[in-house]
Amino acid sequence: MTTFSSRTQNTSHLDEDPAFAMHRGGKLQVTSTVDVSDHEGLSLAYTPGVARVCDAIAEDAELVETYTWKSNLVAVVTDGTAVLGLGNIGPEASLPVMEGKSLLFKQFGGVDSVPIALNCTDTDEIVETVVRMSPSFGGINLEDIAAPRCFEIEAKLRERLDIPVFHDDQHGTAIVTVAAMHNAARLTGRTLADLRVVVSGAGAAGVAVTKMLIDGGIGDIAVADSKGMIYQGREGLTPIKQELASISNKAGLQGSIESALEGADVFVGLSAGEVPESVVATMAEDAIIFAMANPNPEVHPDVARKYASVVATGRSDFPNQINNVLAFPGVFRGAFDVQASDITENMKLAAAKALAGLVGDDLSADYVIPSSFDERVVPAVSAAVAAQARQDGVARR
Amino acid sequence: MTTFSSRTQNTSHLDEDPAFAMHRGGKLQVTSTVDVSDHEGLSLAYTPGVARVCDAIAEDAELVETYTWKSNLVAVVTDGTAVLGLGNIGPEASLPVMEGKSLLFKQFGGVDSVPIALNCTDTDEIVETVVRMSPSFGGINLEDIAAPRCFEIEAKLRERLDIPVFHDDQHGTAIVTVAAMHNAARLTGRTLADLRVVVSGAGAAGVAVTKMLIDGGIGDIAVADSKGMIYQGREGLTPIKQELASISNKAGLQGSIESALEGADVFVGLSAGEVPESVVATMAEDAIIFAMANPNPEVHPDVARKYASVVATGRSDFPNQINNVLAFPGVFRGAFDVQASDITENMKLAAAKALAGLVGDDLSADYVIPSSFDERVVPAVSAAVAAQARQDGVARR
Repeated sequence: MTTFSSRTQNTSHLDEDPAFAMHRGGKLQVTSTVDVSDHEGLSLAYTPGVARVCDAIAEDAELVETYTWKSNLVAVVTDGTAVLGLGNIGPEASLPVMEGKSLLFKQFGGVDSVPIALNCTDTDEIVETVVRMSPSFGGINLEDIAAPRCFEIEAKLRERLDIPVFHDDQHGTAIVTVAAMHNAARLTGRTLADLRVVVSGAGAAGVAVTKMLIDGGIGDIAVADSKGMIYQGREGLTPIKQELASISNKAGLQGSIESALEGADVFVGLSAGEVPESVVATMAEDAIIFAMANPNPEVHPDVARKYASVVATGRSDFPNQINNVLAFPGVFRGAFDVQASDITENMKLAAAKALAGLVGDDLSADYVIPSSFDERVVPAVSAAVAAQARQDGVARR
Repeated sequence: MTTFSSRTQNTSHLDEDPAFAMHRGGKLQVTSTVDVSDHEGLSLAYTPGVARVCDAIAEDAELVETYTWKSNLVAVVTDGTAVLGLGNIGPEASLPVMEGKSLLFKQFGGVDSVPIALNCTDTDEIVETVVRMSPSFGGINLEDIAAPRCFEIEAKLRERLDIPVFHDDQHGTAIVTVAAMHNAARLTGRTLADLRVVVSGAGAAGVAVTKMLIDGGIGDIAVADSKGMIYQGREGLTPIKQELASISNKAGLQGSIESALEGADVFVGLSAGEVPESVVATMAEDAIIFAMANPNPEVHPDVARKYASVVATGRSDFPNQINNVLAFPGVFRGAFDVQASDITENMKLAAAKALAGLVGDDLSADYVIPSSFDERVVPAVSAAVAAQARQDGVARR
């Protein structure tokens, strides 16, 4: 227990920025869905009525899914080590992003969620903490946890829990990227199998996008980190990069990303490493450029458009925004609708295909992915995810 | 990851009980307090606007209190081992009670809270888990954790965290009991110093009520557990009962609670152990009987009234309901209003006095404590708690 002298912090000047004004007091609240304004309501929602519900769950554990909010509740778990483009800012400073995530979950997917920002960064400690609190939650959304431990944390939690575990920085990004890639290929008369891709960045998003494009049947794909192309036999690779080397880069590209991009069909930027115009100019005809670093894309869209048939970014002020909000609300909505015990790779691919399919005949260079506010997105994604969960035998209702 | 075959559980027959019908889908939701229905709102509440708020908190950690919901958010933490009168029913089955607690927090105190039911019962594991998630919360309400580990968990968390930690089964019960006791004494022309009290039950509530009555200046107080009166030198006492023995029972009562009650002024029942009418008849004139076991008081109120001047129970269908909801919403509201780093013993006593004071001139045998729906309760309790926090030097604003 710490003792403090009383003080008042004057923060009113910060509120001149509308972002601060909006954040004052936080962005979330927990409210009741039932009426407890009178004695009768209270006696049902709390003692003595509640005891009968508790007894029933104690006798039949599955009733917890029906008679509590657990089955619609996600824990948005972070350790604050890789927040947006801000990096390792710690759990407290990550909270505004986690609250934002929670309100997107609710707004778009009707999913309740609670930010859980942890003050530990050890893989096993994070895993144990999440496992211990898991009785309260129907799903776990990992958020802004630094690579490579994010991979191990996700794998261990999926192994130990029978509720959906989803690392949005990986799989949300991958789902939307793959959806947009499908449509970009279609627009230019190709399929994924026709494309040779170069990915910049081997963090959470780079690894997941690469794996999902491989699952989706991409022609060839190679990944660069800050030391250049990742290939089998390169010295000092982490386990996850060794795995990447073994499943990607069939052509065995070595050296710089600049040389790898010569003649490449697709550039996927997930790293913020700038790519010069002279290098973009060496890509193949009908190039596809997804430059997703925020706020500064690896290639500015105006430059990219001079050489590429399709350009996408992470920004909302250019066409084709690759935005995770197109994926995670529908993915969890669909998983919760059938009370899925896991989110399988097939379910993620189904989400990407459903998302891509919404573009339909309106496909154009400026429209390879739906808008975040397209009301068809969550119904389409959730239905595809739920149907695939049934097929994969992970649906419990 | 477990694989399940799809199934549908038909639970509709349960909903014939209105308590089940009310609980369907749970009783809580997380909603947004800001407008994110358009692009502009989203760009402030989430990227890119949110990044400026994160940056500011990373630079000045105290801003987390102003620009997130943390400073109004309580974790309602349980391990499901001592739930209501139901006992050790486990974390999942405890959730309806924890959700009920959360809606009471909101309804009465405007305090947001989230149930965190843990699937571990080891003291150190619970402590570590709560410490790790503490960056997300402004306060910790421990709930329905079995004695004696609840005492150690609370003590360790208060030591390690600089946010309020409150075990409601102990302190909520104690605050309301002490408030009612003040008024019962006043009604019969006495003060606490004039009373000799016998407490039945040495669990969370029994220990806390005893300690708080001692702090409040009670004449003498002795506690019985299932083996009879607790006194210094009794064999096999747990550490907490040893402490009780050393601070209570000045008269050195030994043997059964029945013999201790002979000539006693007050009986406080917190154990469900029935007390026969013949024993009640041996108490002193102007006896005070608080028989708080639910749903079956240790002495039925109709019997108690034959011998006692004041009778209180835990039930809402008799006068003088000792209900924790009179305490915890106002205690956290007051602590949060001044961003207290702790809830001190003085703050709990201040809450009890404020609560007792509301009865005023309307004091009668059937009115020694306000009703749960008395709208003066939370303002009075929170103001007293906040003022005392300032005096105790634990207020941060």
